[in-house]
Amino acid sequence: MNPPAALVDQVLAGQRLALARLITLLENEDPAGRAALDRLFAHTGRAHIIGVTGSPGAGKSSLVNQLARSFRHPAAEVQPLTVAIIAVDPTSPFTGGALLGDRVRMRDLAGDAGVFIRSMASRGALGGLARATAAAAQALDAAGFDVILIETVGAGQAEVDIARLAHTTLVVEAPGMGDDIQAIKAGILEIADILVVNKADRPGAENTLRALRGMLENGRNSADGWQTRLVATVATEQRGIAELRAAIDAHAAHLRAGSAWAERDQARLQAELEALVQRELVARWRAGLSPADYQQTLKRLAARELSPYQALEQLLTQAERGG
Amino acid sequence: MNPPAALVDQVLAGQRLALARLITLLENEDPAGRAALDRLFAHTGRAHIIGVTGSPGAGKSSLVNQLARSFRHPAAEVQPLTVAIIAVDPTSPFTGGALLGDRVRMRDLAGDAGVFIRSMASRGALGGLARATAAAAQALDAAGFDVILIETVGAGQAEVDIARLAHTTLVVEAPGMGDDIQAIKAGILEIADILVVNKADRPGAENTLRALRGMLENGRNSADGWQTRLVATVATEQRGIAELRAAIDAHAAHLRAGSAWAERDQARLQAELEALVQRELVARWRAGLSPADYQQTLKRLAARELSPYQALEQLLTQAERGG
Repeated sequence: MNPPAALVDQVLAGQRLALARLITLLENEDPAGRAALDRLFAHTGRAHIIGVTGSPGAGKSSLVNQLARSFRHPAAEVQPLTVAIIAVDPTSPFTGGALLGDRVRMRDLAGDAGVFIRSMASRGALGGLARATAAAAQALDAAGFDVILIETVGAGQAEVDIARLAHTTLVVEAPGMGDDIQAIKAGILEIADILVVNKADRPGAENTLRALRGMLENGRNSADGWQTRLVATVATEQRGIAELRAAIDAHAAHLRAGSAWAERDQARLQAELEALVQRELVARWRAGLSPADYQQTLKRLAARELSPYQALEQLLTQAERGG
Repeated sequence: MNPPAALVDQVLAGQRLALARLITLLENEDPAGRAALDRLFAHTGRAHIIGVTGSPGAGKSSLVNQLARSFRHPAAEVQPLTVAIIAVDPTSPFTGGALLGDRVRMRDLAGDAGVFIRSMASRGALGGLARATAAAAQALDAAGFDVILIETVGAGQAEVDIARLAHTTLVVEAPGMGDDIQAIKAGILEIADILVVNKADRPGAENTLRALRGMLENGRNSADGWQTRLVATVATEQRGIAELRAAIDAHAAHLRAGSAWAERDQARLQAELEALVQRELVARWRAGLSPADYQQTLKRLAARELSPYQALEQLLTQAERGG
């Protein structure tokens, strides 16, 4: 009657089915998953976590597949690395369910025991997805994968938060995607360790590259001394993948040379911890609240008898009296 | 020595400068803004709040400008309505600052006292932006604007959350923006009361319209009995704007005919209240925490001596001892 222990052993032994099962437990926020992760956590901290974000339509999935190939089948004299891919999928905020299936990807990388692919979908709150993605990355890290690629679909704050789970963040754009893009680029530019212009054979690629180069020259030099790199790729034709791979390796070497690796690791864990604290505090508050009092407050709020802040005061006072 | 009272009177009197000042206070989470909003809140609940979200590059800003025009200069025999636009801008998660200036928009609608335009930028946490946007919408509602257009730039969960502030949600797409789009559409389709294909004169528009029509036919009929409408527009040429306006009016009439208007209003206020509760609980927890204990826990977490969940338990136990 101790499934977490068995599951932990199986995951540490690299059993794929056990790993898939654990991630499902983590996704469902099952206590058994949490118990297993508590035991696995000591085995984490070794994988290179790479976040891939950027505009929809930029071809992130193809790029991630090609990157995975390049880790599996590197140039001669380079050691192949094992790769896990977490595809954080767009989903209905109401019904959940991953839309970009694993199967499409599997055609490309199927049958390779050194590759593990998992889609993760939003189930309800966004916080849940970030939490589950962080937990899945830890499980894959403990299972011994050398590289964990976390691919997100959008370029919003949510995706940025998920990309921050990474040691190395790739921001992928395609040429000529409209005016808003320019603004978005500026917004996510600062999280990019490597900027990728994919579909670089398309019209407008030179303009996009020039614009981004300009922004990089005017822009940041990251706090830890890394100069953001710009790489052009055509993932569907495997062009630029070697250059991208070289930029990724250079970034990893840069992080490992100084204290940056440890700092990013700690910042990530702190963010995860604070998200857990927040959820727990809300859960405890809710458990201590009288449903009748809550409904009464909501009713007065809707009737404009209380402002949101006045309703807040009332609820917290009631919770204190109740607790 | 009671600036909130003066500010409240000025906002209720429709003084634009006071309104701009109040929104800045709300954006900065200044207690004076909160005090003013407490007094203004009784005057809210009248405006029609319209959320506009969708993919980057879909031309949302042009569309919002054209919509604002159509509210200001309707067909004969229709009463013009006053319009406020809140443009929720993409920003750096680190430095903040709105990138799409108000000035670009102002060229189009400048000098019209019945239009108020405001950009809001993320300052730090995303929750802060959603909170400030909700508060700004309340201030504009109290100030008497008939229509409040909330435009967001991305199509991620964050934008979805902000769009949920609305009575009516428009999701805007452009033709042929790549494969990922298809999935994103499905993800945000369910929040759309009205789906807009803008730039409908572009190649691929027919395909996009057909695909969306198919999804709508297979898809939902909203809980409150509204059938999502599909409208094609070319905002830059003012094509389709009258049809879009008609769809918006039909949705408003639908909501007002039944209990749906009140239900959406209450759901929105409840979400806002719960976000406030969450923030307050975290602030109180943090205030009660010993920095030394916290650093110690973080250190053990980074050393993998504690898992995130074990660190959580430790922090909450310490907070209870401390409190």
